[in-house]
Amino acid sequence: MVLEAIKYTPHSLAILDQLRLPHESVYFPIKNSVDAFNAIKSMTVRGAPAIAIVAALALAVELANTEFESADDVREFVGDKLKYLVTSRPTAVNLSDAARKLENLVNETDGDATTVVRAYITAAEKMLVDDVSDNMNIGKNGLEWAKKTIGSDKFSILTICNTGSLATAGYGTALGIIRSIHGDGLLSHAYALETRPYNQGSRLTAYELVHDNIPATLITDSMASVLLKSHPEIKMIVVGADRVAKNGDTANKIGTYQLSIVAKHHGVKFVVAAPTTSIDIQTKTGEGIAIEQRNPEELVTVRGPVVDKDGKVNKEEAKTVHIAAPGIGVWNPSFDVAPATLIDAIVTEKGVAEKDQNGEFHLESFL
Amino acid sequence: MVLEAIKYTPHSLAILDQLRLPHESVYFPIKNSVDAFNAIKSMTVRGAPAIAIVAALALAVELANTEFESADDVREFVGDKLKYLVTSRPTAVNLSDAARKLENLVNETDGDATTVVRAYITAAEKMLVDDVSDNMNIGKNGLEWAKKTIGSDKFSILTICNTGSLATAGYGTALGIIRSIHGDGLLSHAYALETRPYNQGSRLTAYELVHDNIPATLITDSMASVLLKSHPEIKMIVVGADRVAKNGDTANKIGTYQLSIVAKHHGVKFVVAAPTTSIDIQTKTGEGIAIEQRNPEELVTVRGPVVDKDGKVNKEEAKTVHIAAPGIGVWNPSFDVAPATLIDAIVTEKGVAEKDQNGEFHLESFL
Repeated sequence: MVLEAIKYTPHSLAILDQLRLPHESVYFPIKNSVDAFNAIKSMTVRGAPAIAIVAALALAVELANTEFESADDVREFVGDKLKYLVTSRPTAVNLSDAARKLENLVNETDGDATTVVRAYITAAEKMLVDDVSDNMNIGKNGLEWAKKTIGSDKFSILTICNTGSLATAGYGTALGIIRSIHGDGLLSHAYALETRPYNQGSRLTAYELVHDNIPATLITDSMASVLLKSHPEIKMIVVGADRVAKNGDTANKIGTYQLSIVAKHHGVKFVVAAPTTSIDIQTKTGEGIAIEQRNPEELVTVRGPVVDKDGKVNKEEAKTVHIAAPGIGVWNPSFDVAPATLIDAIVTEKGVAEKDQNGEFHLESFL
Repeated sequence: MVLEAIKYTPHSLAILDQLRLPHESVYFPIKNSVDAFNAIKSMTVRGAPAIAIVAALALAVELANTEFESADDVREFVGDKLKYLVTSRPTAVNLSDAARKLENLVNETDGDATTVVRAYITAAEKMLVDDVSDNMNIGKNGLEWAKKTIGSDKFSILTICNTGSLATAGYGTALGIIRSIHGDGLLSHAYALETRPYNQGSRLTAYELVHDNIPATLITDSMASVLLKSHPEIKMIVVGADRVAKNGDTANKIGTYQLSIVAKHHGVKFVVAAPTTSIDIQTKTGEGIAIEQRNPEELVTVRGPVVDKDGKVNKEEAKTVHIAAPGIGVWNPSFDVAPATLIDAIVTEKGVAEKDQNGEFHLESFL
C-alpha cells in the first residue's frame, strides 16, 4: 500500500497530520485556505513541494465549494487567497512560484466564473499529478544510474532528512530512488540518519520505511562514518535538495555537507535527487546561497509522546523536554551546501547529470 | 570558581548528581560502597576515571567510619567490597584496575587494622589528587603544543562528548586543554558537539563551559563540517579517549571517527587528550578494539525537564519522550575509532606524542 500523505478528491482534501506522526497516523481535513494556512504554519504539513500543493489544492476545494457572480470575482478571490497563503511560509520558493503561476493562469483565462474556477482546479490537480510522476521518474532514473554505476548486486543505501511521500506530493525524491531500487529487488538495506535537530529522519523517513516494509535501520548523524567503514555493502548515499546552483553545488538539510565529505573519504557514491524545479540557474555556485539561522529552541528541546516508567509509549500525552545546559549559546543553521566536487550525480525527472572530464556539471540542458 | 564534581574530605564524600544536571546542581552524599555502587549503576556519576575514584573514595569513607578487630578483617572487607564495586560497571577498565591495585596494596601492607585502613585511605586519596594533577599536566602540555603548533593568535576549538570535571576527578582531559588555553587568554571560542545519542555535550560539556564563563556555543554533530568551513578561526579539535592502541588509533565516543575525517578535510588539527593509563600497548591497532552495542532505547528516547506552553522549563517535572517511528531498527555503537593517520597529536600528562617522518606514533616512551 502506497503511503498517501495528501488525500485529494474533487471537493475534498485531507493531509496526514505530521505533528502526530510517527506515533499516530491521523488525517487532517483541509476545507479552505485558512485550514491550509494553519496547517503550513503549524508544520502539520511540511516539505517544499508538499506545502505548495496543499496550498493550491486547498484553494481548489474552496473554489469548488463557493458560488461566484463573475469571472472577475473569481480572479480577485484567487489573488487574495494566494497572497494570504504565501504568507504562511514566505521563504518557500515552491509555494510562491506556484502562487504566481496560478494567479497568472486565472488572470489569463477568459470566460465566465465557472470556466475560470475550472481552469484553476485543473491546474492545481495537475500540480499534484505532475509532482508524483516527476518523483517516479527521478526514482526510475536513479535506479538506472545505480545499475549502470554500481552494478547488479544488491547494495545498501544511506539517506538524510525526509524526502519521501511526507515531503512531496507522493513517492519522494531521494527516498523515491530508494523505493525504486527496493522495488527492483536491488536494495539490501536502507539506513536513515536521524537528522538533528528536527529529527525528520527518525520521525518521518523511519515512518515511511517501516510503512513500506523496506528493511531499514536508524542511526545518529555522527555514526555515518563508522557505518560506512563497517558496512562496505553501502555503495550509495542519496540526498534531496533545497536548491541546486548552476555548478551543481547543492543546498540541503544541515549535515548534507558533512555526509558528502565522509562519502568521498569512504569511496561511496554521493547522489543528489531533485526535480529540475530545484535547479536555480541564476545562482552560479553554493557561495551565492545564504545560510539561514533557525530558532535555537529547536536544538535544545525535543517533543514526543511520554514514555511511562514501564517503557510504554503514551500516545495521548506529548511533551516538550529541554535537553541542554541552561545559558549555553546555540548555532542552528537550517542547511549547508555539498560542493559539486563531492557529488557524483544529480538525478532529475528529466535525466541524470554527471560531471564532464573537467569535473563540471551541465545542468542547463535540463531546463 | 572551579567546578567540583567530587567533594571529598576525610570521612565524607559527595558527588554532583549527573542525573539532575544540567538543570539542577545538587550534591549526592556517598556514605559507603552501596551508595557508590548505586550511583555508578544509575549514572549519577559517569566517566571512566570519575567512576574509579568515587568507588575508591566511597570505600575509604566506609573504612574510616568502621571499627575492625584485625588487619585480616580489613583485608577481607576491602577485597569483598572492591569485588562488589567492580560489578557496578564490569567493562570499566579504570575501575577494575583501581580495584586490583587497592586490593594488592592492602594485602601487601603489614601492621594492625588501623595501619591497613590508613594505607588504603592514603592510596585512595592519592588517586584523586593524582588524577587532577595528571589532568592539569595534560592541559599544560596541550597548551604548550598549541602555542608551538598553531601560534600565539587567539583561536577557537571544537570538542565532542564530556571530558571535563564531570568525567574525571577534576579539570578534565580534552576539556582540561580547553580550560588551559582559555586560562592563558589564547581561546577565542569553544564549540561543543551535542554528542548524540546520550547528549553528554549539550548536557554536561555545555554545563561546564557555562559554569566556567568560557565563551561557548552548542551545535549538533552534523554541523561540525559547515562550522569548520565557515569559521576558519577554529584551528583545533580536541577529543578524549576510551582507549589508545599502540599505534595511536583512538577509541572514543561515537562520532569521533567522523570528526577526525572532517578535521583532515578542513586542515584543522585533530588532538587526542588522554592520561597514559588510557594507552593500551597490548592492543596493536584500532582493529583490535571491539565496538560494543548499546541499548537502542538510548537513541529513540530523550529525557529532560518538561517545557511549559509558555516556554518555561519546569525543573520539578522530568519526562522521557519517544522521538522515533515505532518499529524502526536501531544501530547504536557506543564508540568508534579515529585512526592514527588522522590524529596530529596525543597529549598525555607526561608529554605530547607526534608522528615521526614515517607517520608513526611511539607511545611506548610514555609507559
